[in-house]
Amino acid sequence: MNLLLISNSTCAGEPYLRYPLPAIGEFLSGIRRAVFVPYAAVTFSFDEYERRVAERFAELGIEIFSVHRAADPAQAVAEAEAVVVGGGNTFALAKKMQEQGLMAAILRKIETGTPYVGWSAGSNVCCPTICTTNDMPIVQPESFAAIGAVPFQINPHYLDANPEGHAGETREQRILEYVEANPDRYVAGLREGCMLRYADGRLSLIGSRPMRIFRKGVEPREVNPGDDLSFLL
Amino acid sequence: MNLLLISNSTCAGEPYLRYPLPAIGEFLSGIRRAVFVPYAAVTFSFDEYERRVAERFAELGIEIFSVHRAADPAQAVAEAEAVVVGGGNTFALAKKMQEQGLMAAILRKIETGTPYVGWSAGSNVCCPTICTTNDMPIVQPESFAAIGAVPFQINPHYLDANPEGHAGETREQRILEYVEANPDRYVAGLREGCMLRYADGRLSLIGSRPMRIFRKGVEPREVNPGDDLSFLL
Repeated sequence: MNLLLISNSTCAGEPYLRYPLPAIGEFLSGIRRAVFVPYAAVTFSFDEYERRVAERFAELGIEIFSVHRAADPAQAVAEAEAVVVGGGNTFALAKKMQEQGLMAAILRKIETGTPYVGWSAGSNVCCPTICTTNDMPIVQPESFAAIGAVPFQINPHYLDANPEGHAGETREQRILEYVEANPDRYVAGLREGCMLRYADGRLSLIGSRPMRIFRKGVEPREVNPGDDLSFLL
Repeated sequence: MNLLLISNSTCAGEPYLRYPLPAIGEFLSGIRRAVFVPYAAVTFSFDEYERRVAERFAELGIEIFSVHRAADPAQAVAEAEAVVVGGGNTFALAKKMQEQGLMAAILRKIETGTPYVGWSAGSNVCCPTICTTNDMPIVQPESFAAIGAVPFQINPHYLDANPEGHAGETREQRILEYVEANPDRYVAGLREGCMLRYADGRLSLIGSRPMRIFRKGVEPREVNPGDDLSFLL
């Protein structure tokens, strides 16, 4: 499989999809047209989402076709040169993907080597479940099960601290609850500005910040770009 | 119905349940024993949770009995003088409450006037659904439907800003996604240190900070303690 799983589309103060674009271009080298899944969009339309992403991918010479315009979205995936799943609300994304059979269609397709690019919610749904999303459960999907292209969970937008004076759980506390309830899974806390690339059977961290690894019974620890991540696979 | 729906157990730097204790004492005046639902606890035991809460409620002269020790938890609720639901992970709480039939049992019981106290996840589950929780979906409940004692949604631990430099959605953005997907519901963003009291047919905000009100198509707005909140009912 060939996966590029990006923490977040946009770093604070930067234009949309600016920082990951060079890595996307390198990863999708040779691809001329990608099928896009826009269903994480909630407060703006799927048309608008397709337009925004198409504008950015045009800089790479890649045309975007959004599945919301396909008569048969699963068939569009089956015929894709590459699959791109955008961020937004993970529950809205999972619900619509499940309704249209896209979790299974995408897994079947990317198992044959078709490249997959996701960011934020689009990285979450590539995991076994959506259980490590940060998003609000605004709608109820059929199930928390997702594509399952990798055997570990990603927490995108991983952040270390709460705003000062806020007593709600930190992200680390939330993930420690997840590993307590799911003792057989690793969680990779992927900080903003970072991504995971899986290609040629090898998983790599790309970015300038370490990634935080969680598993039940093990002290959380940091891994750095260049480190061996094969334990996650 | 008689409800005390508290944003959070503990403000930063304060002892556990310190700030809401006087309001709980006044609300539960005359009560000698309360049934406690500990199922939001994930990283510590239900016994430990019962002990912590019992220690605090002892200051009010109220004995705590946790449903995890009952042979028939729904029956324990049916016989309760008061029902107390503690915070933690909302998904873990909802899952176990649904498995034990406690959503329906609590609604039946509090419809007869039995007082209900909840904080954080315990306030979330008093709403029609758990869809405005901040928690990570670490386990999948049967449904997002909850007790439904009030017709609006509470977002506990409501906070205004992200940590500086973080590009993930703000809480307001998350709630605006919720109201977009659920246009018939109000959401009350209940800041830390605040609570809602419903008694004698009247809903009141208690605390020193305003509450932020969201509804689809309406500009978010602040309400203050003393304001008429009947529009939420």
